Amino acid sequence: MKAIILAGGSGSRLWPLSREMYPKQLLSIDGEMSLLQSTFLRLNKLIPAKDILSITNVKHYSDVKLQLNKLNAENVVLAEPLGKNTAPAIACSLEYFNQNSTEDDVVIIVPSDHLVKDSDAFIATVNDGLKLAKKGYIVTFGIKPTYPETGYGYIKTAQALECGFKVERFVEKPDINTAKKYLEDGNYFWNGGIFMAKISVLMNEFAKLAPEIYANLSSLELNNCSKIEYSVYENMPSISIDYAIMEKSDKIALVKLKSDWNDLGSWQSLYDVKEKDADGNVITGKVVTNNVKNSFIYSQKELVAVSGLEDIILVETEDAIMACKRDESQDVKKLFEKLKESDTTKLHKTVFRPWGYYTCMNSGEGYLTKTICVMPKQKLSIQSHNYRSEHWVVLEGKALVVLEDKEYIVEAGDSIDIPVKAKHSLQNPYDNELKIIEVQKGSYISEDDIIRYNDIYGRV
Amino acid sequence: MKAIILAGGSGSRLWPLSREMYPKQLLSIDGEMSLLQSTFLRLNKLIPAKDILSITNVKHYSDVKLQLNKLNAENVVLAEPLGKNTAPAIACSLEYFNQNSTEDDVVIIVPSDHLVKDSDAFIATVNDGLKLAKKGYIVTFGIKPTYPETGYGYIKTAQALECGFKVERFVEKPDINTAKKYLEDGNYFWNGGIFMAKISVLMNEFAKLAPEIYANLSSLELNNCSKIEYSVYENMPSISIDYAIMEKSDKIALVKLKSDWNDLGSWQSLYDVKEKDADGNVITGKVVTNNVKNSFIYSQKELVAVSGLEDIILVETEDAIMACKRDESQDVKKLFEKLKESDTTKLHKTVFRPWGYYTCMNSGEGYLTKTICVMPKQKLSIQSHNYRSEHWVVLEGKALVVLEDKEYIVEAGDSIDIPVKAKHSLQNPYDNELKIIEVQKGSYISEDDIIRYNDIYGRV
Repeated sequence: MKAIILAGGSGSRLWPLSREMYPKQLLSIDGEMSLLQSTFLRLNKLIPAKDILSITNVKHYSDVKLQLNKLNAENVVLAEPLGKNTAPAIACSLEYFNQNSTEDDVVIIVPSDHLVKDSDAFIATVNDGLKLAKKGYIVTFGIKPTYPETGYGYIKTAQALECGFKVERFVEKPDINTAKKYLEDGNYFWNGGIFMAKISVLMNEFAKLAPEIYANLSSLELNNCSKIEYSVYENMPSISIDYAIMEKSDKIALVKLKSDWNDLGSWQSLYDVKEKDADGNVITGKVVTNNVKNSFIYSQKELVAVSGLEDIILVETEDAIMACKRDESQDVKKLFEKLKESDTTKLHKTVFRPWGYYTCMNSGEGYLTKTICVMPKQKLSIQSHNYRSEHWVVLEGKALVVLEDKEYIVEAGDSIDIPVKAKHSLQNPYDNELKIIEVQKGSYISEDDIIRYNDIYGRV
Repeated sequence: MKAIILAGGSGSRLWPLSREMYPKQLLSIDGEMSLLQSTFLRLNKLIPAKDILSITNVKHYSDVKLQLNKLNAENVVLAEPLGKNTAPAIACSLEYFNQNSTEDDVVIIVPSDHLVKDSDAFIATVNDGLKLAKKGYIVTFGIKPTYPETGYGYIKTAQALECGFKVERFVEKPDINTAKKYLEDGNYFWNGGIFMAKISVLMNEFAKLAPEIYANLSSLELNNCSKIEYSVYENMPSISIDYAIMEKSDKIALVKLKSDWNDLGSWQSLYDVKEKDADGNVITGKVVTNNVKNSFIYSQKELVAVSGLEDIILVETEDAIMACKRDESQDVKKLFEKLKESDTTKLHKTVFRPWGYYTCMNSGEGYLTKTICVMPKQKLSIQSHNYRSEHWVVLEGKALVVLEDKEYIVEAGDSIDIPVKAKHSLQNPYDNELKIIEVQKGSYISEDDIIRYNDIYGRV
């Protein structure tokens, strides 16, 4: 079996925790692992890492790769050069398997940002799906509705099969009255966005139902760590797998998902899955409360003190604070839209790179300070800056600094100055993490004031 | 005329904006000036700076002096070595005037943290008070109640005088029914904590009614910039001027305050004096709202986004976030009590010193970064540290650095390293402000790792 993890989401609904540059799937919601990592580990119980392909937007490629490499470096990540919804992403992922294997295997396609706690029940569902997929069905996982949700699509089932149902049709997000009817009817399931089928079956459906995607696939050359070619990808229509294939195909079956499931589509749904204290509160981080009930208070960094409020969500992150009514937490999307011009929706202050990460601490006119962490055996490109000098103080570990063709070893407690225009590279050939503070000083401070002399590794 | 500004408050009710180390009177609430500065300027219309004495706790001495020196360097600041409530502070201030002047002038005593917008009406009240004070009365300013407030003391007036009333008695904070009766009665006023009297009249009352304070005064030597002697001050009882003198004296008169007045005793009262937008919101700083009503949203630094909430107060400062119901904003005091052990109630990240100020930006294991601003013609003491090195990068201006008996001039963009145990001093003998970034690095990072070789000027 093979797997495709759809890791391209841009996460506006859990803002300010999720960002355009650091979406939900990359966050740890429940414990140490991110949702992406948990998804990978769930599949990895059945499927070897080399057969689990994650596909994401190029801007999240580094983050996705860094997180998955921590679990198993054999995993495969494909980068979309631009967002085109799910159908082109899935088609390219299938093409990757076709180009790199001769087997006509069954593939499971899953979102990367849903929460499933009971992995065993999930795997039992996969095994049910496998039986139907091997018979030529495109199997979708249906979630039995527990209330009349209007935010999900529904799937109407017809006659029973061996371990599932034939699907009669997919239906759009309903209004509340329709949702209530669906709930009573009993033949409707929520569409969880999880699919299984033989690669050949899906490819044939693409050829038949989405030829404008299919026609472009043969121009691609896909190895196990690559960016999909822009000139090919931009020709594909932006369309979801539901519209392109699922709603049109007559091969669709449904198996009922045996595990728990939460799409974490809002702060409310996150509140739902968290354990509450005696006052019905979910509290994370440095929080003090006085007479607070049924609320979700999340502090990432600074002290949050709340008094006399009920049914609210209050989230503090390193550069934004969001407060809303708990049962209107979908309105966060509206706030997010209002804020879209502002950088705060895009960037977290901590930015992950293949060589490690950096956090912007403070900036003012003519200066910027960062903490930089370089992982063992990693280095940054050789570079220079036309408008700023840099001053590095080593906090932890040992730095190998290349400065104008000389090498310096800078130990914890020592510092080094990088003058304007000097060629330099920060390197950590050692076994421990390297942490430094960087003070940038200059008339023009911007990430684009950089000349790179090699670019094999990432950029600061 | 002379004036005493009581600037010793510790400000828990506007937390997190006010702190034990940076109380309300030092904050700018309405425009550029702090409440202390506005109080000074209001009095300075009638009274020369050298006759305006501010008395504060020693821990706020630097801040108070820095703020007032910006307005007029001739002002006088006395520092209490420990908090003893208002009666000892006032007695020592009166003693200062006795020791430094032969005149038996009228003195006005005012809190430093109240908001008065109409200075002219305030001065008209002072002129009324002056007439009665010259006749030997201790004149208190009464505020005509507009609603049955239970948080203030009341003053009951008796027969009318030339431009005020005789006072029958002072009464404690009433319960709501009593407060309603006072409001209907018409002879009750709120006690605004503003007093006027001849220095000799007050001194005689201290001698008669508070001899245990009065007896200590003659041991003090008070010049125009001094800390009151600890060994003397600690012998005085901790008692308010109301209890010690006002409630017992038979010389009390009242003039009705002609100006507006707000004691800013809670976030609600701050909301009351601020201008609202069409939705009844008071919004300060980087704030985005969606469907928010009758709320006070204050952002000092980071983006604050609020959706779907009504009647709340949400305050963001550089190291704490506070949210509460608007009409229960007095509960902030409860939060503050809960937090008292934590440093967040005490320290702002920005600390003012006689030579300038510094802001802690970021800290982690073994390091701390600050931005430091040294005012023109100011310098820090010569010092050394046993456990940390320091690295200074000059951002603006020019630094004169004394390092082990050598002098270095460090210009913007340049840096200098201060090794562990090296004697050093940061100085700014120039005409422009000096701004630097300091990275402290060491096994033990604390303000108490410091050896000072002179201590005329402040400390980092």
